[in-house]
Amino acid sequence: MAHNPSTAEIRSAVFAQKTEVAALFNELRAGSLDPIGPGVTRDTYGVGEQFAYRVIGGRAAGLGLEQRYDHAANLFMTLPGRNRKAPRIMMGSHLDSVANGGNFDGAAGVIAGLVATRCLQALGIEPACDVTTMAVRAEESVWFEVSYIGSRSAFGVLPDGALDARRVDTGRRLAEHMGDCGADVDAVRQRKASLAAKDIRAWVEVHIEQAPQLVEAGLSVAIGTGVPGNFRYPEISIHGEWAHVGLPRRFRHDAVLAASDFALGLDQIWQAADAQRLPMAFTIGRFATDAREHALTKVAGLMTLSLDVRAYDRAHLTSLEANVIALAKGIEAKRGVRIDLGKRASAEVAPSNSKLLADLTSAASALQIPTMPLASPASHDTATFTVAGVPSCMLFVRNANGSHNPYEAMEIDDFLDAASVLSAWLAGEVIN
Amino acid sequence: MAHNPSTAEIRSAVFAQKTEVAALFNELRAGSLDPIGPGVTRDTYGVGEQFAYRVIGGRAAGLGLEQRYDHAANLFMTLPGRNRKAPRIMMGSHLDSVANGGNFDGAAGVIAGLVATRCLQALGIEPACDVTTMAVRAEESVWFEVSYIGSRSAFGVLPDGALDARRVDTGRRLAEHMGDCGADVDAVRQRKASLAAKDIRAWVEVHIEQAPQLVEAGLSVAIGTGVPGNFRYPEISIHGEWAHVGLPRRFRHDAVLAASDFALGLDQIWQAADAQRLPMAFTIGRFATDAREHALTKVAGLMTLSLDVRAYDRAHLTSLEANVIALAKGIEAKRGVRIDLGKRASAEVAPSNSKLLADLTSAASALQIPTMPLASPASHDTATFTVAGVPSCMLFVRNANGSHNPYEAMEIDDFLDAASVLSAWLAGEVIN
Repeated sequence: MAHNPSTAEIRSAVFAQKTEVAALFNELRAGSLDPIGPGVTRDTYGVGEQFAYRVIGGRAAGLGLEQRYDHAANLFMTLPGRNRKAPRIMMGSHLDSVANGGNFDGAAGVIAGLVATRCLQALGIEPACDVTTMAVRAEESVWFEVSYIGSRSAFGVLPDGALDARRVDTGRRLAEHMGDCGADVDAVRQRKASLAAKDIRAWVEVHIEQAPQLVEAGLSVAIGTGVPGNFRYPEISIHGEWAHVGLPRRFRHDAVLAASDFALGLDQIWQAADAQRLPMAFTIGRFATDAREHALTKVAGLMTLSLDVRAYDRAHLTSLEANVIALAKGIEAKRGVRIDLGKRASAEVAPSNSKLLADLTSAASALQIPTMPLASPASHDTATFTVAGVPSCMLFVRNANGSHNPYEAMEIDDFLDAASVLSAWLAGEVIN
Repeated sequence: MAHNPSTAEIRSAVFAQKTEVAALFNELRAGSLDPIGPGVTRDTYGVGEQFAYRVIGGRAAGLGLEQRYDHAANLFMTLPGRNRKAPRIMMGSHLDSVANGGNFDGAAGVIAGLVATRCLQALGIEPACDVTTMAVRAEESVWFEVSYIGSRSAFGVLPDGALDARRVDTGRRLAEHMGDCGADVDAVRQRKASLAAKDIRAWVEVHIEQAPQLVEAGLSVAIGTGVPGNFRYPEISIHGEWAHVGLPRRFRHDAVLAASDFALGLDQIWQAADAQRLPMAFTIGRFATDAREHALTKVAGLMTLSLDVRAYDRAHLTSLEANVIALAKGIEAKRGVRIDLGKRASAEVAPSNSKLLADLTSAASALQIPTMPLASPASHDTATFTVAGVPSCMLFVRNANGSHNPYEAMEIDDFLDAASVLSAWLAGEVIN
């Protein structure tokens, strides 16, 4: 049995990988550059994501790990444990990206898992249980507007109809895209599971921070307190009346003004929640008059918009949804318009496991890496693990320019700090 | 010399044309139906407008009128006067429409001119001066986003650069479209004039009302008090910052919220003007996030919008524009965005000629057609005549469902009321 490694040995085994890690990130970037740029495009179950699987699979092969693809084409890279039947420890994240997005969002979590695994190898630790890094498919919901496709397929909980979702740019169905990437679409449809909570001791996902709160705080790493739940209305339509530019104010039913009322009404709700320190976010990502009909000299009769609302407490989400509906009703009455909220999707709130959160915080503290607790404002596959009943937590890495854009600014040293925390915790878990 | 016709004779000579007039409107509609429908599409210097010129030219030929096209392909249909050198009387309007618009907007004014001319013929009146109905080109600024292309070309005042404007849907240049329709583009560019104010005694334009104010008042006809001036910013862009859905509120520079502030700020300015009974209108016809980049889970970094602001008083317009600029500056500071107002266009305020307004009101009164004065909230070619120095006025016809949509609801009897007013006034002007 290996000796209990010191924090200095852990750091050294992690930072020794710096050159390889930087090269791996660069290899990923170079092969998935957006054709117009300057970011990367690793489309969900598409050419870009496939490329990333080849690169990551190559690295896992170099480390001598076992590799297995499940029915949804998720990849599991495993360092075998002494007891292969014991519940395993899992790490990882996703490999896809938004269009013209950043190189680190997702990939950092997969590479962190491999770095921690390599650290065990370098320290001569044969783990007590299997240590698996999972490269999760299809986390970015911009492509098919379905959340957590890969992780929910793994747990056999992808909802009905998801396979028929169409990619927003091409209109091609998810089922076809999955088939192209080697998935067994029938098994996904029948909700076969490749993962079960009872077989997983813990799940930890490293991810770049998607806001500059660590930059503000001057810290390299944060420990995630939970992933928000959400409700989404991707296709709200506001029906006013198309009219001539000359129509006096009292006769108008202007969809632009009604939509503006809606947006600013939501902003006020958020402001009030901020004042009460109730974390939440709402986003109207799409907001548009009808391009087939709108014109300089026409009062707009139709606006369509998308809405994503997220919070960390189920009761808060419920009250926010009631607020959204009341706001819409009020605007209908005020402006003489009709607001159709359209189809709805939602995801559960997923708080971090408190013991895991404490253990990761202690590991960081022992390494003298100061951290802060941070509620993730974004969605992550970790939510699927949490909801399935797996003790889960996240580590966030400082990143100056947000994510989902080409200008992510994660320093490799900050990433290696997070990987050190992960490795120290992992070594402590599996050494005996 | 003919006897001075009674009001009963005028009415009778006008209403005798009811069947032909209805047939003429139907012929126009049938030949310019929108391919998707249900409205008509008579595109400026395009296939739809050309069709309307053929139909109207056919009617003028049937009446034995002289026909002449000018360098901008405007059509002049003239009943010769006894003194051909005396300043003429002109009537008319435009023949183009918005896409999937109504059949009466524009065409009614041209047909009214022909009805009044036919009325003179039926009453055996050989007019003292030429009586000309003008079918004006290219009034609907939705196609090239340039106002009054046909009428300003006729007066030789089309601004520099207008010929290079591109049709919003196809991107093809105005100059090419004009050339297709037989215009002499070089003469337009050199600002040749086919009309001069000194040669025109009066201009009267009949037009459907574009709001339901006559419906509200229970009247068939209104006398126009003036055409508003305007300023337009067709391509305002609001530059925020693209960001991940998870970005907390304090870090966001959300273009959607900034645009909503702008729309509602303008609405408040309008409400205040309404309370002071200062007529005006603002319209944001286009209002959209960037379709290439926007997504359900991205904070929008870019909104583009169009703005049209109109009022009846030059000083009011000037103060409104100062308000718009101040509003934009305030939003830039509040939201941390940049607002680029982009290119600007404007048109002068054009009050009706007071003697002409009084004469038309008297003519209506003699016919026992009750009328009301009405400030046109819309733009019309009449503004070009007014600004050029021609005594000008408009007559509006009751219409229930606005214009620039397929559901215009003008009754032929209401139209013939307006044509009677026009005819009675015309007969009085030209009989001696």
